[in-house]
Amino acid sequence: MIRYLTAGESHGKGLTVIIDGVPANLSIKNSDIDYYLGERQKGYGRGGRQKIEKDRAEILSGIRAGKTTGSPISVFIKNKDFETWKNIMSVEPVPASRAGKEFTVPRPGHADLAGGMKFNQKDLRNVLERASARETAARVVAGAIAKKILSEFGIEILGYVVSIGGIGDDECMSKPVKSVMKAMRLTQLKYRSDIRCPDSKNADLMIKKINEAAKEGDTLGGVVKVISSPLPAGLGDYTQWDKKLDAKIAAALMSIQAVKGVEFGAGFVYTEGHGSDFHDEIFYSRSKGYSRKTNNAGGFEGGVTNGEPLSVRAAVKPISTVKKGMQSVNIKTKKKVKTVYERSDICAVPSASLIAEAVTAVELAGALQEKLGGDEIAFMKSNYKNYRSYLKKF
Amino acid sequence: MIRYLTAGESHGKGLTVIIDGVPANLSIKNSDIDYYLGERQKGYGRGGRQKIEKDRAEILSGIRAGKTTGSPISVFIKNKDFETWKNIMSVEPVPASRAGKEFTVPRPGHADLAGGMKFNQKDLRNVLERASARETAARVVAGAIAKKILSEFGIEILGYVVSIGGIGDDECMSKPVKSVMKAMRLTQLKYRSDIRCPDSKNADLMIKKINEAAKEGDTLGGVVKVISSPLPAGLGDYTQWDKKLDAKIAAALMSIQAVKGVEFGAGFVYTEGHGSDFHDEIFYSRSKGYSRKTNNAGGFEGGVTNGEPLSVRAAVKPISTVKKGMQSVNIKTKKKVKTVYERSDICAVPSASLIAEAVTAVELAGALQEKLGGDEIAFMKSNYKNYRSYLKKF
Amino acid sequence: MIRYLTAGESHGKGLTVIIDGVPANLSIKNSDIDYYLGERQKGYGRGGRQKIEKDRAEILSGIRAGKTTGSPISVFIKNKDFETWKNIMSVEPVPASRAGKEFTVPRPGHADLAGGMKFNQKDLRNVLERASARETAARVVAGAIAKKILSEFGIEILGYVVSIGGIGDDECMSKPVKSVMKAMRLTQLKYRSDIRCPDSKNADLMIKKINEAAKEGDTLGGVVKVISSPLPAGLGDYTQWDKKLDAKIAAALMSIQAVKGVEFGAGFVYTEGHGSDFHDEIFYSRSKGYSRKTNNAGGFEGGVTNGEPLSVRAAVKPISTVKKGMQSVNIKTKKKVKTVYERSDICAVPSASLIAEAVTAVELAGALQEKLGGDEIAFMKSNYKNYRSYLKKF
Amino acid sequence: MIRYLTAGESHGKGLTVIIDGVPANLSIKNSDIDYYLGERQKGYGRGGRQKIEKDRAEILSGIRAGKTTGSPISVFIKNKDFETWKNIMSVEPVPASRAGKEFTVPRPGHADLAGGMKFNQKDLRNVLERASARETAARVVAGAIAKKILSEFGIEILGYVVSIGGIGDDECMSKPVKSVMKAMRLTQLKYRSDIRCPDSKNADLMIKKINEAAKEGDTLGGVVKVISSPLPAGLGDYTQWDKKLDAKIAAALMSIQAVKGVEFGAGFVYTEGHGSDFHDEIFYSRSKGYSRKTNNAGGFEGGVTNGEPLSVRAAVKPISTVKKGMQSVNIKTKKKVKTVYERSDICAVPSASLIAEAVTAVELAGALQEKLGGDEIAFMKSNYKNYRSYLKKF
Repeated sequence: MIRYLTAGESHGKGLTVIIDGVPANLSIKNSDIDYYLGERQKGYGRGGRQKIEKDRAEILSGIRAGKTTGSPISVFIKNKDFETWKNIMSVEPVPASRAGKEFTVPRPGHADLAGGMKFNQKDLRNVLERASARETAARVVAGAIAKKILSEFGIEILGYVVSIGGIGDDECMSKPVKSVMKAMRLTQLKYRSDIRCPDSKNADLMIKKINEAAKEGDTLGGVVKVISSPLPAGLGDYTQWDKKLDAKIAAALMSIQAVKGVEFGAGFVYTEGHGSDFHDEIFYSRSKGYSRKTNNAGGFEGGVTNGEPLSVRAAVKPISTVKKGMQSVNIKTKKKVKTVYERSDICAVPSASLIAEAVTAVELAGALQEKLGGDEIAFMKSNYKNYRSYLKKF
Repeated sequence: MIRYLTAGESHGKGLTVIIDGVPANLSIKNSDIDYYLGERQKGYGRGGRQKIEKDRAEILSGIRAGKTTGSPISVFIKNKDFETWKNIMSVEPVPASRAGKEFTVPRPGHADLAGGMKFNQKDLRNVLERASARETAARVVAGAIAKKILSEFGIEILGYVVSIGGIGDDECMSKPVKSVMKAMRLTQLKYRSDIRCPDSKNADLMIKKINEAAKEGDTLGGVVKVISSPLPAGLGDYTQWDKKLDAKIAAALMSIQAVKGVEFGAGFVYTEGHGSDFHDEIFYSRSKGYSRKTNNAGGFEGGVTNGEPLSVRAAVKPISTVKKGMQSVNIKTKKKVKTVYERSDICAVPSASLIAEAVTAVELAGALQEKLGGDEIAFMKSNYKNYRSYLKKF
Repeated sequence: MIRYLTAGESHGKGLTVIIDGVPANLSIKNSDIDYYLGERQKGYGRGGRQKIEKDRAEILSGIRAGKTTGSPISVFIKNKDFETWKNIMSVEPVPASRAGKEFTVPRPGHADLAGGMKFNQKDLRNVLERASARETAARVVAGAIAKKILSEFGIEILGYVVSIGGIGDDECMSKPVKSVMKAMRLTQLKYRSDIRCPDSKNADLMIKKINEAAKEGDTLGGVVKVISSPLPAGLGDYTQWDKKLDAKIAAALMSIQAVKGVEFGAGFVYTEGHGSDFHDEIFYSRSKGYSRKTNNAGGFEGGVTNGEPLSVRAAVKPISTVKKGMQSVNIKTKKKVKTVYERSDICAVPSASLIAEAVTAVELAGALQEKLGGDEIAFMKSNYKNYRSYLKKF
Repeated sequence: MIRYLTAGESHGKGLTVIIDGVPANLSIKNSDIDYYLGERQKGYGRGGRQKIEKDRAEILSGIRAGKTTGSPISVFIKNKDFETWKNIMSVEPVPASRAGKEFTVPRPGHADLAGGMKFNQKDLRNVLERASARETAARVVAGAIAKKILSEFGIEILGYVVSIGGIGDDECMSKPVKSVMKAMRLTQLKYRSDIRCPDSKNADLMIKKINEAAKEGDTLGGVVKVISSPLPAGLGDYTQWDKKLDAKIAAALMSIQAVKGVEFGAGFVYTEGHGSDFHDEIFYSRSKGYSRKTNNAGGFEGGVTNGEPLSVRAAVKPISTVKKGMQSVNIKTKKKVKTVYERSDICAVPSASLIAEAVTAVELAGALQEKLGGDEIAFMKSNYKNYRSYLKKF
C-alpha cells in the first residue's frame, strides 16, 4: 500500500520524499509531477518567494523508462535560494559570525513556541524551518503519483477554493467534478491568476479582499473543498475504528499546515436539521446500479464509500506570519516584543486546495490498493473490472 | 503506547475490547469504567433499548488487585438482550425457521448498502450489527482507562453538548473545564435528564426540540465539544504529517458513528477573518511560564500542544434510522420501498459527546506516553515533573 | 489485512483474542478452532495442567450462521481452573489473607526478572501470568482462522517436530506436506501420544529422552519446522526492509515463548558451503511453469515467495521451569535462593510446532490478502485464479 | 520513535534514506556516517565495484550546525558510476538503441524471478536493481545515527564475523564488546584487510578460503554476530506478540539481503541439552544489582532485555551471483540457459556483519525511546539516569 515520508527544511538544501508501495507499471513522466509543483506555487496572495523558486521534482529512484517498477520512488526538490542560506542552514557547524541570528520571538499561530518546547530548541529557526508549509511541496509529489493511480481507474479528484476571508459560497456543492473543473479553468483565464475558485463572481471579490489585506499587513484564510468523480462503493471499512476511510482523510487534511477543520458533505450543517432532510435516499436502475439524488454524506456512510463522489471541505486559518506584528515574548530575554516579519504570503488558500487534493488522493489510492491488491496496475485494473460489474448487480 | 481494538455486534453476545499498552501500576476499579458506560446510556432522546441493557464492564485481564500490570486489558460487555436474538445472531447455522428474516432494505445514512457491497453481504444485518453505534460502548471502556492515566497528570477532559438541531451556542468556548463541568452538573440536576449541556437555558429548548422530533418520527443531530485542562506544551509532533496530534484526534473523532465534521478552536470561523484577529498572542510570567489570553487555536499549533486547553468540536449528523421512513430499494427484489423502522433513538448527541471525550482521551494518553515513556505510571509522573519544570523555564 | 491482539493471564479468567480483517464469507465452525486448541494441549511431555483444562473457543463476534461477516472476530477461552485462583488473580483487591503469597524468586530463563523490572512489579506473578506460554492458546485461534483462509487457496501448512533434546534429524526436509502429514499421523497412531514427529524411529527415542528428563527433574527443548504446499510466487516484498515476508515470519516465530532461533531452508547450513552448492536452479515446463529441484531457500528469495513450499525451522529452548531448581535471588530479601517449582511441563516442543504453524499461517494469509485484496473470500479466489494463470505463463 | 524508509537502485542515481523520529540535540558529524559507509565497502572478498564508489553521505535535512533538530534526517548517497548507466537506468524513456538489453535470465538465489513475477516485470533488471545489497548502504546510515543515540547511553554495539564458509568458531561468545573490538582491530592490522573477525588464527584461514572460492568462480557465506555492552533491563515487551524486542531484531536481521537464519544466545544449541544446562542463573550484589554468570539467553528473556549484553547471530548465505554459472531459464524464450555473470563479490560476510550491527542498533535505539520518551537527548538521559538507579535497587 502506498505510504510516504517527507523530509527537508524551508531554507535548507531541499525537500525529500520517499513514496513506498506504488503499483508497478504505472506510467509517470517528470512533467506529471512538475505540473502540480507549479500549480502549488501559483495562487493569488503568495509572496515573492514563489517567484524565486520554480520547483522541479528530481526523481531519484523507483521509475525507469517512464514506468514504475514497484520499488520506492524518491524525489528531491531543490530549494533554489539555498545558496543565500547555506551558512545559516549549514549541516556542519559554522563560525558564529556566519551562523546567522537566532530566531527567538515565537509567532502566534505558528509551531514556533510549541515546537521549541517539545524539542528543547532555543533557536526557533530549527522549528519553523520544518513546520513551514514549504513541506507541502513534498506532499504534492506523493499526491501527483496517487492521482496517476486514480486516473487508471477513471477517478478524477479536484481541490478548489470555496471561500476566502468569508467571501464565497458552496453553490458548486453538487456539481460533478468535470463541470467544476471547467468553471475553474474559465476563472483562471479571466483573472490570469490562480485563485482556484470556479465561481468567477466571487473570485473577483476574493482578489479584492486579498489586495486589501495586503495593504493592511494582514492575512486571510478560507475554505477549500475536495471533490471527485463517483467512487466505487466499498472502499474504507466500518468494522474497526482505525480503518474508516473518512477518518483517514480527515487526518490527512488536518495534518496540512493551517488546516483547523474538516467536514464531509453537509458537515456542520447536518447538525441544524432533521434526519429526513439529509440522509441520501437510495435508488436503483439496472443500467447504473444504485444511486442517490443528493450527496449530503459526501460519499461516505459508515466510513465506507457509497458509490457517490467524495465531497469534503477543510478550514484553512489565515497565515500566521502577520506583517503588522503581534504580541509575543523573546524567549531569551523573556521581554514582551512584537513579532518580526519574515517574508510571507497574504493568503495560501488556493495552494491549500491543491495540497488537500494531493493528500486525499493518497488516501484514496491506498484504499483502492487494499480493495484490489496493490502490486501492479494491470492486475489492479482487471480486479477492478470484476468488482465494478459485481457492484452493478449487487 | 496505548492502542485498542474492539469487536462485537449490536445484538450478538456482547462487545469485546482489548486495550494494549496501558502503563503499569495504575489504579482502576470496575466502577471507574461502569460509570462511563452508565453515562453513555443516559441522554435525552435515547430510545427504549438503553433501559433494557444496563451495561457493565467485565474486566477479563490486565488488572490485578485493583492495579494494572502492564499486560493488555480485555473487557467484555454483555448484550443483555442476546437471549432474544440468540437464533438470529447465532454463530453456528440455525434452521431457516429460526434464523430470522434477512434485512434487505438499506437505510439511507447508515453503512447498510456501502457495507453490504464491500463485503458481499446480502443480509444487511451482517453490516448494521457491526456498524451500529452500540460499538461505542467498547470505546468508552478504552476512554475510561485513558482518563485514569490523564488524571494522574492532573489533566481533566470533558465532552459536552454545544447544540442540538441548531439550538445552542458555544458561549462556553473559553471557560475552564471545571466551570463547564459544574454548569453541566447543575443542568442535569434541573432536568433530571442527561442532556450533557452546560447551558441550562438552551438545554430547555433542546429537550423541547427532541420531543417535537420524536412526535414527527424524525431525528436530530448536533455539535459536541471536547475541552481539557491546559495540556503540557510539546505533545504531538509537527515534523511528519502522520504524527500531528490534532490530526490523530480528528481521525479518532471522525471515526465515531455519525460524526461528519471536526474543528479545532475557532475552526471554520477562522476562515472569515484576518490573521491578526485570531492568532493567540503570547505572554510570559515567571510564575506561570508562557500563556495566551485567547485560545482560538484550540490548544494546537503545528499539530503540537501549546500549553493551552484542548478545544475541539465535532458535528454529529441526525440519527439515520428515521421512523417516518425514507426512500430506498429492496436489494433482493430491486423494488423501490420505504425503509422499515427498527427501534432506535431520536437523538444521540449527548452520548456522542461522551464518546468524543473517550476517544480524545485515548489519543492524549498515548501522546503523554510517547513524551515520557509509557511503561509505568510512577516513572511517567517523575519524568513529567522534570518536564513541567523545564517548560516553565524555557 | 488480518491482524490480532491477545490478552489474558495464565490463571486469570481466560484468554481473549480479537482477530481483525478476516475476509467475509469464510466458513468457520467452532470445531475448526477447537480442534487446534485440543492439539495444542496434547503433546508428550506436557504436565498435568493440560488435562485439567480442555480448552474451548467461545466465539463472541464476527461469525454469523457459520460464516465470517468481515467484522472482527473475538474469541474467549476460559481458564478452567480459575475458580481455584479467583482470589489470587482477583481484578478487585482482596483481603491480604486471601490474596496469595507474592512471587519473589525470579526463574532463570523466564521473563520474571526482566519483566518485573520493566513494569516495576515486585510481585513477579504479575509478569509470569502474562509471559506464560498459556497465551499461545489465543494465537492458535488466530492461526486456525488463518488456516481456513489458506485452505480456500489449496494451501496446506504444517508444523511438526524435527528434534527433541538433540534427537532427530531433518530428513523430511524436501518431502511434500501431504507425505509428512501422513507420516506424522502414523507416528501418532503408534505412540498414542502426540509427539508431532513424522519420523517414528526418532519419535521413540524422543519419548525415551523426555521420560529420562522427567525423572531428573529437568526439561528439554528441540527444533520445530513449518512447511507448506507450494506457495504462489510473489507474496511478500523485496523493495523495502520492513515488507519482506520471511522477516515477518521470523518475527512471528521468534515472538513465540521459548523460541531462540529461526532459519529458512538450509539456514545456518548455508554458511558452510559454496553458492553453487545451494542456490536452487530454475527450470521451466509449459504445464507447470517455473520450478526448482531443490528448496534450500525455503521458499523465499529476496523476502518474496518463489513458488516453492515454505520451509522454516525454529529453535525451542528447554522449558525454563526446572523442577530440580536453579540459583536465583529473592528480590525482596536479596537473599540467594533456589527457584521454587510451580507445576510445569517437561517438554513443550510438540505444542510449539503447532504454535509455529499458527503464527506462520497468519503471516501467509495476510500476504495473500495484500496480493489479492482482502475483503471477501470469493473475490480473493477469483483474483487468485487470474494471478495463478498469469504466473504459469510469466 | 526512530523509523526509516530507504529508496534507490544499485545503478541508479543513488540511494535515499529518510530517518524519522531521531531525538533532538544529538551531535552528528558527516564523518560519523561516512566512517561506516567506508567500513561497509571494505571487506575481503568484495569485488571491484567497491573501489569505484567511495560512498559519501550527503545529509539533506534534519541536522543543523552539527546537531539534530528533531526533524526527519534525509541522506543521499550518490552512485558514483551512474554516468555509465544513465541511459540504461534513465527515469524517462530512452531510444531502444541506448536503453540496454533486457535482463531475462533469473539468477538462482536472487529475487530476480520471484520479484519479476510479483510486479510483472519482464526486464528483471527492474528487480535486481532494487533487491541488490547495494541498498544496505542506506541502512548503514540509519544505523550510524542509531549508534550515536546508543553511545549517549554508554551502549556500544558491534557486529563481526564468526565464520566464513564453515571456518571459524564462536569462542568469543561470552567476551565483552571492548575486548572483541580490540581483538578485531588487531586482526585488521595484521591482515590490512577487513575481515572483521576478532580471531586472527581463523581470519587467516578465511582469507585463504575466499581466495580459493574466487579461483573456482564460486561464492561463500558465513555467520555474523552482533554483541553489545550490557543493556538496561526492561527494553522490549513480553505482553503482546508484536512487541517483543528480540522478535523485532530478528525481523530486522532477516530482512538483510542473504540472511537466512537468526539465533539469540545459545540459539539452536539450546535444543540439544537440558534446561538446567542453559538457563542463566541469577545473582545479586548491592554494587552492581542483578547479574548472570552466563548469557545463553543472549540478553533476552521473554523478549525483554534482562540486563546482560545482546548476543545474536545471523546466517549469511553465499552470494547468489556465481561466476561459474548456474542452471536457469530465459524467461522470454523459455529456453534452458546458464546464468550470465554480472560483476559481483565472492563473499560479503564482513559487510553483512556491519549491516547486522546497523539494523540492530536502530531497534535498540527505538526501544530506548519507547522506554524513556524519545523527543530530546538530554531528557532521555536524565530519565535514563533515574531508571538506572531504580534498576539497581529493584
